[in-house]
Amino acid sequence: MKNTFGTSVCLTVFGESHGPFIGAVLDGIAPGIEVDEEEIRHALTLRRPAGRISTARQEKDEYTIASGVFEGKTTGTPIAIIIPNADTRSKDYKKTYGLARPGHADFAAYCKYHGFEDYRGGGHFSGRVTSALVAAGAIARAALAKKGIYLGTHIKELAGVPDRAFGDLKADIDDLYGKVFPVLSAEAEEKMRAEIEKAAAEGDSVGGMLETVIIGMPAGVGEPYFDSFESVIAHMMFSVPGVKGVLFGAGADFVKMRGSEANDAFRMGADGKVYTKTNNNGGVNGGITNGNPVCFTTVIKPTPSIYKKQETIDFVENIEKDISIEGRHDPCIAHRARIVVDSLAAIAICDMLAGRYGTDYLG
Amino acid sequence: MKNTFGTSVCLTVFGESHGPFIGAVLDGIAPGIEVDEEEIRHALTLRRPAGRISTARQEKDEYTIASGVFEGKTTGTPIAIIIPNADTRSKDYKKTYGLARPGHADFAAYCKYHGFEDYRGGGHFSGRVTSALVAAGAIARAALAKKGIYLGTHIKELAGVPDRAFGDLKADIDDLYGKVFPVLSAEAEEKMRAEIEKAAAEGDSVGGMLETVIIGMPAGVGEPYFDSFESVIAHMMFSVPGVKGVLFGAGADFVKMRGSEANDAFRMGADGKVYTKTNNNGGVNGGITNGNPVCFTTVIKPTPSIYKKQETIDFVENIEKDISIEGRHDPCIAHRARIVVDSLAAIAICDMLAGRYGTDYLG
Amino acid sequence: MKNTFGTSVCLTVFGESHGPFIGAVLDGIAPGIEVDEEEIRHALTLRRPAGRISTARQEKDEYTIASGVFEGKTTGTPIAIIIPNADTRSKDYKKTYGLARPGHADFAAYCKYHGFEDYRGGGHFSGRVTSALVAAGAIARAALAKKGIYLGTHIKELAGVPDRAFGDLKADIDDLYGKVFPVLSAEAEEKMRAEIEKAAAEGDSVGGMLETVIIGMPAGVGEPYFDSFESVIAHMMFSVPGVKGVLFGAGADFVKMRGSEANDAFRMGADGKVYTKTNNNGGVNGGITNGNPVCFTTVIKPTPSIYKKQETIDFVENIEKDISIEGRHDPCIAHRARIVVDSLAAIAICDMLAGRYGTDYLG
Amino acid sequence: MKNTFGTSVCLTVFGESHGPFIGAVLDGIAPGIEVDEEEIRHALTLRRPAGRISTARQEKDEYTIASGVFEGKTTGTPIAIIIPNADTRSKDYKKTYGLARPGHADFAAYCKYHGFEDYRGGGHFSGRVTSALVAAGAIARAALAKKGIYLGTHIKELAGVPDRAFGDLKADIDDLYGKVFPVLSAEAEEKMRAEIEKAAAEGDSVGGMLETVIIGMPAGVGEPYFDSFESVIAHMMFSVPGVKGVLFGAGADFVKMRGSEANDAFRMGADGKVYTKTNNNGGVNGGITNGNPVCFTTVIKPTPSIYKKQETIDFVENIEKDISIEGRHDPCIAHRARIVVDSLAAIAICDMLAGRYGTDYLG
Repeated sequence: MKNTFGTSVCLTVFGESHGPFIGAVLDGIAPGIEVDEEEIRHALTLRRPAGRISTARQEKDEYTIASGVFEGKTTGTPIAIIIPNADTRSKDYKKTYGLARPGHADFAAYCKYHGFEDYRGGGHFSGRVTSALVAAGAIARAALAKKGIYLGTHIKELAGVPDRAFGDLKADIDDLYGKVFPVLSAEAEEKMRAEIEKAAAEGDSVGGMLETVIIGMPAGVGEPYFDSFESVIAHMMFSVPGVKGVLFGAGADFVKMRGSEANDAFRMGADGKVYTKTNNNGGVNGGITNGNPVCFTTVIKPTPSIYKKQETIDFVENIEKDISIEGRHDPCIAHRARIVVDSLAAIAICDMLAGRYGTDYLG
Repeated sequence: MKNTFGTSVCLTVFGESHGPFIGAVLDGIAPGIEVDEEEIRHALTLRRPAGRISTARQEKDEYTIASGVFEGKTTGTPIAIIIPNADTRSKDYKKTYGLARPGHADFAAYCKYHGFEDYRGGGHFSGRVTSALVAAGAIARAALAKKGIYLGTHIKELAGVPDRAFGDLKADIDDLYGKVFPVLSAEAEEKMRAEIEKAAAEGDSVGGMLETVIIGMPAGVGEPYFDSFESVIAHMMFSVPGVKGVLFGAGADFVKMRGSEANDAFRMGADGKVYTKTNNNGGVNGGITNGNPVCFTTVIKPTPSIYKKQETIDFVENIEKDISIEGRHDPCIAHRARIVVDSLAAIAICDMLAGRYGTDYLG
Repeated sequence: MKNTFGTSVCLTVFGESHGPFIGAVLDGIAPGIEVDEEEIRHALTLRRPAGRISTARQEKDEYTIASGVFEGKTTGTPIAIIIPNADTRSKDYKKTYGLARPGHADFAAYCKYHGFEDYRGGGHFSGRVTSALVAAGAIARAALAKKGIYLGTHIKELAGVPDRAFGDLKADIDDLYGKVFPVLSAEAEEKMRAEIEKAAAEGDSVGGMLETVIIGMPAGVGEPYFDSFESVIAHMMFSVPGVKGVLFGAGADFVKMRGSEANDAFRMGADGKVYTKTNNNGGVNGGITNGNPVCFTTVIKPTPSIYKKQETIDFVENIEKDISIEGRHDPCIAHRARIVVDSLAAIAICDMLAGRYGTDYLG
Repeated sequence: MKNTFGTSVCLTVFGESHGPFIGAVLDGIAPGIEVDEEEIRHALTLRRPAGRISTARQEKDEYTIASGVFEGKTTGTPIAIIIPNADTRSKDYKKTYGLARPGHADFAAYCKYHGFEDYRGGGHFSGRVTSALVAAGAIARAALAKKGIYLGTHIKELAGVPDRAFGDLKADIDDLYGKVFPVLSAEAEEKMRAEIEKAAAEGDSVGGMLETVIIGMPAGVGEPYFDSFESVIAHMMFSVPGVKGVLFGAGADFVKMRGSEANDAFRMGADGKVYTKTNNNGGVNGGITNGNPVCFTTVIKPTPSIYKKQETIDFVENIEKDISIEGRHDPCIAHRARIVVDSLAAIAICDMLAGRYGTDYLG
């Protein structure tokens, strides 16, 4: 499988930054899910560049649901979402082909596609392509909501500035969906924005860390080998442009912990349900959900496109050159990546749930 | 897919800790690879418990290559490796069924398998099962070596003690395969062993971080969506018992970096090959290898089995209880997990290479 | 996997007869294949209804290549083809929902999709959807042609009328692509057309048998278990609407043969290449190609849509009713199914070749 | 995927005719299915050579369930079945390597595996390998039986001799499992046996046609594209050694039918369930089950191993030679293939049901 993910619920992506259309096909979603186009538009807004902390490229994201939805509800057949590209300035890119942007896929793509790749605006590697995934993800999240499963993501840390920890999970999730810049603490948000603007002013960029929680997940989902809950989520997350790390629960902190600290004590809730006192394992034991909230972190590297001069090569001419990347780009993508993470996580969860409980489960 | 991984080179695992056999089927390996049984035995030794820092369970790992090898070479058909279980003391486990060991899969497995799971010694979740994967991995590593691709893993950090960084990659890789405790610095090794013994003495355990390098990887391997090189490796790594995080290149450090630091400048080598001055991206851009060494880190949580008393529940009786885990267990599994990481990474790489260059590529 | 086929070259289909768009995503095609839009249009013409022997529905098939093609060549990323639906008379269908057309998927779809299916014009089950597959297939056939692999299909038998056997394979293949009604013998064609018109005049329909040959296939492609060459082709063929049987080589005639007749004697050609004197095995032994032309037959059932009155049920009202299917439909689809068979077979072959020889093989 | 089939329920096969073990791994079977070893042994008996109409090779089929079964019930983890090879006379085969047996995979395997294949006794291509699949199939059939789903197969036609049609389906299925030679009519059986013995006496072999019925299948299983019920069954069937055709319902007879004959009229049963008056579509419409019995036919070619002298080549020496195949072989394999067809069909059905209704459905 290449540009298709999943076994029970499948996601296929296509498109290049400056081609006619980008799009996604979401297949295996149960019939009968209401498709709220307002939700899709809102999700697309969360991905769209916003203000001084983003690229100046204006994308309209005028999507069409090409199939799989009838009279406002999913039919059970593939849902194709297509988005025409507009406001593409191809000439910006043509003259720089061969000049490998450091941190970008230009050179790796050349090695893979032998010069036939559509290099304009990053081509298939462009973050632009993720807008179709976000639209698809909105439908997946609606399906999960029918079962009381919700997820949300905040910027846990950005340029050294930490957000506050999650508190009331459902309230925080709801709060985050209302924000273009998904930070729980207003004070942290201000500091993060300042860091981004500062980096932007210096022609540079910053990275960040996103933390995602999933509530309402039933226990018993995931496979010990090789489709552990963590494997499937991580597989998906490492497809999000810029993601360089995925950690569950306490993540890197496990390295400094003792087993007696790391283990999560099981307890019986007043409601008769099992829970754990701590959640260092992020809701997953042995690759299988244990009924606690699932919690994972993704590391987003600093946007590779920067105005600052960098050393590089021209792989067509085979010589060393310098590069200063002009055009429109983001000093930070962590906040825009948030909804991509949510969307793809939601689709991966739908896949695992449909595999576990059948294709009608979420319907 | 459940207990099978891969599309071009496939790995299937089976077995329970106290069942008749554990085993693995490795399929899609090119015909004509020499199978060096000495190498397999050595790899199994690296996984086997050793001395005071490991469990006292003595496993002989008397494997049989049941198929797929003829006259000392791979045939191209599935290679099945079977290992009988011996020295199993099932009675240790029977009486504790229902008592969920914190940090273990017991409760999650119960939710998934409804009480039909073979609970003895962790059943299918036991680290024991990985010995068949290690044997399969030795064959995969031999296939990679024919193309000049080598990989190796050290304990980057354990209980707060860091190892030295990789230096001469090939020499370090060779060095590590000679060591049961894979640490590059003798001084660091001593400190780490002391930490493990200290935790063991307190009836506790420690976690660690493994760092793996892959050299000789051709550029152009991996898919932007959804089978990025990172996605496939991470998928596999999150199947290794105890792994809670996977990070590529600079990993979590990206969060504090600026783009100008994080980006790896491309340069032309004297040999006409492209390389990067730094390798923060761990040899992967846009999900595709760029010809640099690939570098990733896995976080291993502290062994959940500890002698210390812990709070838990009995999920059969639905009451809260305390637990002190008796029997044989490891105060640390990072060193033993090392060869599992190497083995599974090697198989994942074979899968990606065979998918990219065809089934005969590694033959 | 649901609406996606393949492992190395993947095909995803979406769309309903009366939805906004139908489409297909063809992924894994090597970069650098020239895309001849004239060929795509010609292939679409072969699928389009023609004259008195077809439905009166006029479809324009104005396709767009939405992605994966740049400057006239494949890029190696997913090729999406989208076709807007036009000339759709939805009102014809609305009033008959619940009235199960015998031989159609109406009732089965209702059992699967619980009434949420887009029932208009057969929805996702409509032969209309195959037009996107035909466009994708034209690109796959171009890829195969670069390696000297060609395939073609004729109507072997229709309503009791047999065509002549294949003679000069390459010449016959070329001849067939020039024909909307793919029959090798002009005399047979005349008789077949007469049979179709006769059935049409009686408000009825006829079935047929298509025979496909593939020349230039290298030996050694296919897997003994479970992806035999025959398995993969048959899997694909049974997705073509109306196909109820797939047979390789001598097919059903094997039942009356002795081994001494059925076995194909191997011989050494003057060119040093191995061939067989007969080709009863259709170019495949043990699931693997043997270098001979591959030959298979597909059985196409009579078009289920007929004007004649039939007994049926209304599954909404749960009562028995009679039905006379009005509207536009084909008295025979064998000739139109031909290019669907060619297209999907070509894609399946690309998948097997890319899996065997790598993703660049056909580039 | 190579030697692994399925997405929700997966089957992996390994082994060579004269290697240490053959085996199968059946994964995804729900936990809690009772494993009746008597049933497994009986199924193996049905595959084993019997009397004058079979090879003289005596195989004991002493299987071991290596994993996945605990206290007599499935655990939900992979069920591995291993069978040691015994009574193997490897020397019979060594001297003939290079001499391609017509109708066998020898030459095709050489093209695929480049001479590294284990050629002894057909290696991985040997029918011997199917015994592990039969053992796995017995467990799958037990799982289906819990839901009231039963299947059975008879020899529909052999060497021109037809069996009677299925009558009372459940009674016929039960009857067939009691017979080593699965024919419904005693008279037909006698004639078929006579034909086999006659062919054997002449050093030749015969082919046959198997017809399988599945009762109790729920409506709504299968996918329009590309995993139609027919696609999945056919995929599996074309992995059975000797199968050259798969036909559903009326199969090849569709070619001579009119739509008005071929269509199956829907009716309301007295029990309120929908059925069809005829079953020409074999219980499948549009790739989805319609609740009727599923019916399909597989064409088995004559055993290629015959004593009669045949023309062939030696692909090592690259010269033409004659061959008379000595050793033990079957004049007919249709009756032995029956249980392989039943077993693999049962596993494919489990896969589709688990995909549709979840992993616990059959438990």
